[in-house]
Amino acid sequence: LVSRMRAFGTTIFAEMSALAVRTGSINLGQGFPDTDGPAAMLDHASEAIAAGANQYPPGPGVLDLRQAVVEHRSAHYGLRYDADGEVLVTVGATEAIAAAVLALCEPGEEVVAFEPYYDSYAASIALAGARLTAVTLRPAQGRFTFDPDELRAAITPRTRAILVNSPHNPTGTVFTREELAVIAELCLERDLVAITDEVYEHLTFDGVEHIPLATFPGMRERTVMISSAGKTFSVTGWKTGWVCAPREYVAAVQTVKQFLTFTASAPWQVAVAYGLRHELEWVAALRASLEDKRDRLMDGLRAAGFSVYRPQGTYFVQTDIRPLGFADGLELTRRLPELAGVVAIPTQVFYDHPERGAHFVRFAFCKRDEVIDEAVARLKRLS
Amino acid sequence: LVSRMRAFGTTIFAEMSALAVRTGSINLGQGFPDTDGPAAMLDHASEAIAAGANQYPPGPGVLDLRQAVVEHRSAHYGLRYDADGEVLVTVGATEAIAAAVLALCEPGEEVVAFEPYYDSYAASIALAGARLTAVTLRPAQGRFTFDPDELRAAITPRTRAILVNSPHNPTGTVFTREELAVIAELCLERDLVAITDEVYEHLTFDGVEHIPLATFPGMRERTVMISSAGKTFSVTGWKTGWVCAPREYVAAVQTVKQFLTFTASAPWQVAVAYGLRHELEWVAALRASLEDKRDRLMDGLRAAGFSVYRPQGTYFVQTDIRPLGFADGLELTRRLPELAGVVAIPTQVFYDHPERGAHFVRFAFCKRDEVIDEAVARLKRLS
Ligand SMILES: CSCCC(=O)C(=O)O
Ligand SMILES: CSCCC(=O)C(=O)O
Repeated sequence: LVSRMRAFGTTIFAEMSALAVRTGSINLGQGFPDTDGPAAMLDHASEAIAAGANQYPPGPGVLDLRQAVVEHRSAHYGLRYDADGEVLVTVGATEAIAAAVLALCEPGEEVVAFEPYYDSYAASIALAGARLTAVTLRPAQGRFTFDPDELRAAITPRTRAILVNSPHNPTGTVFTREELAVIAELCLERDLVAITDEVYEHLTFDGVEHIPLATFPGMRERTVMISSAGKTFSVTGWKTGWVCAPREYVAAVQTVKQFLTFTASAPWQVAVAYGLRHELEWVAALRASLEDKRDRLMDGLRAAGFSVYRPQGTYFVQTDIRPLGFADGLELTRRLPELAGVVAIPTQVFYDHPERGAHFVRFAFCKRDEVIDEAVARLKRLS
Repeated sequence: LVSRMRAFGTTIFAEMSALAVRTGSINLGQGFPDTDGPAAMLDHASEAIAAGANQYPPGPGVLDLRQAVVEHRSAHYGLRYDADGEVLVTVGATEAIAAAVLALCEPGEEVVAFEPYYDSYAASIALAGARLTAVTLRPAQGRFTFDPDELRAAITPRTRAILVNSPHNPTGTVFTREELAVIAELCLERDLVAITDEVYEHLTFDGVEHIPLATFPGMRERTVMISSAGKTFSVTGWKTGWVCAPREYVAAVQTVKQFLTFTASAPWQVAVAYGLRHELEWVAALRASLEDKRDRLMDGLRAAGFSVYRPQGTYFVQTDIRPLGFADGLELTRRLPELAGVVAIPTQVFYDHPERGAHFVRFAFCKRDEVIDEAVARLKRLS
């Protein structure tokens, strides 16, 4: 393994999901739902297979999906993109992030991201030979946020890009208009590219709405906006994502992307185009159901003795394990199958400064109610 | 776009396929069949969707597919791999190649490949910050081969790996036991890793058999063996490939791969496992049919005035355009839609030394007979 990747092992998600399978534990670790996406959308995929959509799609993606993405961005956010040159279909958001970082960041350049971060950010940055500067999200008034001065101080003349994930995995924070304005202002002032991971854009609660960074004045022109079908439509295994950005950014990302995977699978693209056009009511119902599940899991975790942060989005609850008498989340999550028959994610692996997240553990609530209830019942053994 | 990728534009495949769509030309450029894979395998994919295989599969891939790959390698080549740790499922062979090169080659190291080469090789090597040394395949007795002394001379103390593609795209060469022995000997002598792209392993003709480099003494331990479902089962749009290699190589490749795309789509994996176990008769029939199509296209191209090389494998015919009075394949293929309503691939873009391939043009024959016939009829307009 090349030296710049030696700090990275198996992703925590693969490790913990394998642990769940091995120990027969309830998996509240990796974020994937245990019920499927809209039936009509699944049928569209099968029909696409039967209709012969099984060969390479065009390099930028199936045109109908690119058009559906354009319509979606316009209808939801008032953002206008050209399906021909400003949209690129990728193998999930993960490939979009990797390709964007590899395409835009030279070795030695710096990329700012908020910690805790989805682990592929650090890996993509390392793969590019660039350097990650982590700005820590800290709890304040029950949600995680950043200190604008800390963000400002993290930006140097070598900073090329800022990676922004909102709704934020793993803390559940949805950045407010004020927080995003701080980020936008710094991007403009310091000439940064924003790479935004918005895969949980539709999964927000309590009436909180997701605001894309690209909607801020001047930001559309410097934002590589990333989303995907996996979370919105409960098809995480379909690996279908997309990038919307000005033409020259899309061209750069595509140059790298085409050599990572050539194209993304064709039949999903046909089905997801249908989903974006016809299944947003299904998504609204998913969001309502997830809000209930969030409350269910939060109540249960509190009853089991965890201190709990209320997520405004995503399908994860961030907890503090100290009230239970534990100090190290990595140690606890490795023992959790044996202690309680449950798998969770130690948030500390998403930090450049692990000590800042040692006592946080993340639980997923995109699971059937009875699964959540059983997990909670088991977790009560901890106290 | 980062400087090391600026030499790369849109892949020639995407460019030429878009040109075919735009001009309504017959596309004998990019290699994808115009008939689908085995019906029962397609049904298995639809059944997997209906049965709920729509969430993230395990990081290394669906176990059943890994086991089917192991059985296939053992039955066909006598090669033994452990499904648990020596097999990794990827988003097609393209991702496997990118991840292998990025995982194994440090910036400044050298990678040897035979030119003309599938264009992702050069791009992956550039992305890794490594350097490509191209050894030219030249026509001799009607097929393309290399000069062992040239290969030996291309290896320096900085050479880390050799990329070997057999059956070879775009020349159609299937390396002989003698040619492979030369490569194996140099790998052992100079301590190189072999990264083998064997996606056309089942598409060989005239009784010529594909021999994996990993079957040579000492080579299994230093070979990252790559293949995929796209060509074998005529599902190029499914993007499902695999790596077989010793444990430490698989671990390295997986470390990178998981941050490029996380996992490959789940339903295809279920279906391809079925295909590897139950559809090899279908593949034998495909191979026989492709052999006929090869002859059909070769005869037609000869009648149209091209000089033609007889491919022993793949689904491409390499031609020399000089007998038609043309000198530059790139120029000709860009004008071919207007001259003849056909799209082909200019082989010269696959060279480090483009002048060595200026007069070669590649045509695909994985098309229905009537499509081949119509293309040939049109190409007769050239003379
Ligand atoms: C590829 S796992 C990605 C994100 C996610 O689902 C998680 O954080 O659990
Ligand atoms: C991704 S295009 C890959 C290879 C191929 O099909 C071709 O050479 O045309």
